[in-house]
Amino acid sequence: MVFVGFGFLMVFLHRYGFSSVGFTFLLAAFALQWSTLVQGFLHSFHGSHIHVSVESMVSADFCAGALLISFGAVLGKTGPAQLLLMALLEVLLFGTNEFVLLDLLGARDAGGSMTIHTFGAYFGLVVSRVLYRPWLEKSKHRQSSTYHSDLFAMIGTIFLWIFWPSFNSAPTSLGDTQHRTALNTYYSLAASTLSTFALSALVGRDGRLDMVHVQNAALAGGVVVGTSGEMMLTPFGALAAGFLAGTVSTLGYKFLTPILESKFKVQDTCGVHNLHGMPGVLGALLGVLVTALTTHQAYGDGLQAVFPLIAEGQRGATSQAVYQLLGLCVTMAFALVGGSLVGFLLRLPFLDSPPDSQCYEDQMCWEVPGECTDEAQVPLSVEEPDTRA
Amino acid sequence: MVFVGFGFLMVFLHRYGFSSVGFTFLLAAFALQWSTLVQGFLHSFHGSHIHVSVESMVSADFCAGALLISFGAVLGKTGPAQLLLMALLEVLLFGTNEFVLLDLLGARDAGGSMTIHTFGAYFGLVVSRVLYRPWLEKSKHRQSSTYHSDLFAMIGTIFLWIFWPSFNSAPTSLGDTQHRTALNTYYSLAASTLSTFALSALVGRDGRLDMVHVQNAALAGGVVVGTSGEMMLTPFGALAAGFLAGTVSTLGYKFLTPILESKFKVQDTCGVHNLHGMPGVLGALLGVLVTALTTHQAYGDGLQAVFPLIAEGQRGATSQAVYQLLGLCVTMAFALVGGSLVGFLLRLPFLDSPPDSQCYEDQMCWEVPGECTDEAQVPLSVEEPDTRA
Amino acid sequence: MVFVGFGFLMVFLHRYGFSSVGFTFLLAAFALQWSTLVQGFLHSFHGSHIHVSVESMVSADFCAGALLISFGAVLGKTGPAQLLLMALLEVLLFGTNEFVLLDLLGARDAGGSMTIHTFGAYFGLVVSRVLYRPWLEKSKHRQSSTYHSDLFAMIGTIFLWIFWPSFNSAPTSLGDTQHRTALNTYYSLAASTLSTFALSALVGRDGRLDMVHVQNAALAGGVVVGTSGEMMLTPFGALAAGFLAGTVSTLGYKFLTPILESKFKVQDTCGVHNLHGMPGVLGALLGVLVTALTTHQAYGDGLQAVFPLIAEGQRGATSQAVYQLLGLCVTMAFALVGGSLVGFLLRLPFLDSPPDSQCYEDQMCWEVPGECTDEAQVPLSVEEPDTRA
Repeated sequence: MVFVGFGFLMVFLHRYGFSSVGFTFLLAAFALQWSTLVQGFLHSFHGSHIHVSVESMVSADFCAGALLISFGAVLGKTGPAQLLLMALLEVLLFGTNEFVLLDLLGARDAGGSMTIHTFGAYFGLVVSRVLYRPWLEKSKHRQSSTYHSDLFAMIGTIFLWIFWPSFNSAPTSLGDTQHRTALNTYYSLAASTLSTFALSALVGRDGRLDMVHVQNAALAGGVVVGTSGEMMLTPFGALAAGFLAGTVSTLGYKFLTPILESKFKVQDTCGVHNLHGMPGVLGALLGVLVTALTTHQAYGDGLQAVFPLIAEGQRGATSQAVYQLLGLCVTMAFALVGGSLVGFLLRLPFLDSPPDSQCYEDQMCWEVPGECTDEAQVPLSVEEPDTRA
Repeated sequence: MVFVGFGFLMVFLHRYGFSSVGFTFLLAAFALQWSTLVQGFLHSFHGSHIHVSVESMVSADFCAGALLISFGAVLGKTGPAQLLLMALLEVLLFGTNEFVLLDLLGARDAGGSMTIHTFGAYFGLVVSRVLYRPWLEKSKHRQSSTYHSDLFAMIGTIFLWIFWPSFNSAPTSLGDTQHRTALNTYYSLAASTLSTFALSALVGRDGRLDMVHVQNAALAGGVVVGTSGEMMLTPFGALAAGFLAGTVSTLGYKFLTPILESKFKVQDTCGVHNLHGMPGVLGALLGVLVTALTTHQAYGDGLQAVFPLIAEGQRGATSQAVYQLLGLCVTMAFALVGGSLVGFLLRLPFLDSPPDSQCYEDQMCWEVPGECTDEAQVPLSVEEPDTRA
Repeated sequence: MVFVGFGFLMVFLHRYGFSSVGFTFLLAAFALQWSTLVQGFLHSFHGSHIHVSVESMVSADFCAGALLISFGAVLGKTGPAQLLLMALLEVLLFGTNEFVLLDLLGARDAGGSMTIHTFGAYFGLVVSRVLYRPWLEKSKHRQSSTYHSDLFAMIGTIFLWIFWPSFNSAPTSLGDTQHRTALNTYYSLAASTLSTFALSALVGRDGRLDMVHVQNAALAGGVVVGTSGEMMLTPFGALAAGFLAGTVSTLGYKFLTPILESKFKVQDTCGVHNLHGMPGVLGALLGVLVTALTTHQAYGDGLQAVFPLIAEGQRGATSQAVYQLLGLCVTMAFALVGGSLVGFLLRLPFLDSPPDSQCYEDQMCWEVPGECTDEAQVPLSVEEPDTRA
């Protein structure tokens, strides 16, 4: 079931046309195979064989998710060779980070607030920072959306919304824990949708809503409960978390993205900082908080499924919470350092980066049918013959 | 799985652009939370706590379904404040009606022919009647569809078609009953699709098919077996029911909708009367018939799952059928009385109803990108300067 | 779950507009009912009753899949009456072929490389050959795609990609066999996606990618493991098979389709020969190979689920492989002979075949909204009045 979740991350990026959807497809297929190998070496390498199973499919999906989030930050400004190199390295880093967090530190991160969203977003943002293009203005006219492309993107949003509860609950233990995760995700998503609409109308001109906010910020509720979804968050906690995530994300689109670009020289095409970065960090911190409040009587017999180390008496709740916080720091370190290194590698000249004036342009890499291309919007300088006189 | 069904009700309304899909999203998110509360108070209120579970998610989905059906009737003619007030009140009425039907009367309505479709459609139609706009002609030019918007709507239709068997069988007992419900729904949908194509060609100009019929009437087969799907309808019965529903629905679009508007002053934007209203009532009556024919030997051990009251000897088949019929009457009463009251409330002036000339217009509430807006279709009255003489 | 797979075969054909999606919907609904009857007579006819179950739904879906593949070959060149007659006869032939293969020969074909893909593709190609239109050039200007129609088709591709593992594993035994099938399909799809991108860039002008290749050839990996998916293919075998299938399919689109049309007079609208025909035959041969290598120790207790006849000692691995090969020959015979007969029947004049100049034209059968129709692309022969002199 969960396998579906990642697919729509692709559709969601539809609005920049063939390249978005095509390269997302390519990167996902590549990441699925490569991360099966990488995670196989790290997790299930027994006697020179890698054991594959449905769980390894789910892990590989999650890795592809993180890669696609990073892709969202550099979308339209990178060529296919750059993207494949980025995928190659990011999958390695993702696997190592996940191994450190889940296996070495024993942190819990079922829906991947840290491993997927925080890692993917900040990795992509740092790469985008290193690849900063001061003359991107030349391609600005191709960056806008159209009425139909917004509707396409909305299909992606609705799918993600619907499958997010399954996505977050996929790697949790069957039974009560899985149901709890799905319900928490669901309440959080519903709350973030409401707060997004409210905020978008509040900050909009004449109270008008902005489609970009609805497409993206409405999903922030799913990101924010990625870590704490399997824990005893309570429905009220999920609603509050979702409300907060929707608010932060919408305000981020409105106010933070322009500042990021002008002050910090980070060109974040899809706004992954608002949808994945900030809600991911919020979600990790929420996980720390909920972990610190863990008690034996709240979970009963279910404690073994969520916090095996606490149930076995090896750790207390506070100590587990410290490890969760440590997990967030490790993730940020991996994302920032890894992203910088990968970013500098991507600047190697033989990787065919598109020129500043050809960003967001399908014709660089695709055979495009005649009509309705972005090209058609470029004003033609018609020279009048005027051979009269 | 079933959770998906409702999502595409949203996509299905795509053709009026941002407002359709955006407000549907908003209303669904609102209804999911509010109806969990309302149904929690009515069904599972134990010691000042509401117990939530996967069943309460399914119930809330069903409630959102009814709300979106009503939204279909008033689509394009109401502002966001009106819609939210409508949602607030309709969820309350839906919960009460469902409680009366299922818990007090002991009627069976697994797929919601009565509780969802009949209630949602007639509620919306009455609201639309009260909000009648005699000068809606001013916005008529924006009510038409385009080639691409029809294809978008078709995506919604196909999804609904595919998920309807899961949707109808979701709340039934596991095992035989669930399989029977899925199969009955499936045969009924297939039959209604065929009859829709046949009828649409028969009544069309030069035997041409009409996309509106295919988009909508093909789904009537799913509505009509909402009550009787879990019963011993037999495949032949399901095929006959679907055939009838497709026929009635197609004829309704062709002949009844114009009469409804001109004679009864009901402006039914999406034709919910044809897709949900009439097939819903038909489905409820079919449920009465099939219930009256219930025998112990036809169901065997499965009787307990479908008709617990008959299995326990508290009611006979005929008496259960009478309760089913009573359920339909109660539903109609709730829909008509409730719809009138809510309609009058929605006429309160501070609710910002859009003016007659601004119906079906995204720019009232959304930031719309430059090209391809409906605005572009408005004929411009170009005044020729003619300063020659 | 699997039921979803076939639905998107429909969406996949979106790009020729209303007729594609509408007729696909009609044919699928018709085939589902008719094939339930046909397969019921052949497989589960007990005491004048046909037993229906969830398995018969899956079988009927598979039959609809084969029919839609054939539809892809004749798309745009046939009227609705022709299509319904074709459906009527093809479902009969499909049922008979499947009965001979699975029940009489005892061949294994879980995902239908032979019964669905090879049969459907060659049946459709032969029909298209018999219906050859030498003057199809007159409609050539309507055969191209547009930017938005390619994006619509991409939605179909992604859905098919996601649901193919479920599709192939649906009819296999629960447990290990089902997981193995899903994993094999998944690896094969990922490999064919990569090889498609690589090949498409290699053969394209200036290294540009072609959307048609990505939309179609990326799925060839799912076709090629249709027979061998449930067997001990090993992940490496699945990757190799997928890589080969993607390569063959992409090269087919680039080089073979034009030759097929000019030399063999087969007008293959959707390129089903490349996506279903060749990968299907490859898949059947791969099945022969993997079957011949079957050993008791590789499967252990799982042998009964995959090869019951070998497990019971009635056949050796080689003998089973011969039967598999025989199954492919029988399928080709059914497809070629059956396709010819049906093709000649479809040439009957009262079936209203569209004229050469009206192919790929929605207005023949549909009420089309004013703007954006294909009609708009027809060059108008504006006669200049020039009454001056």
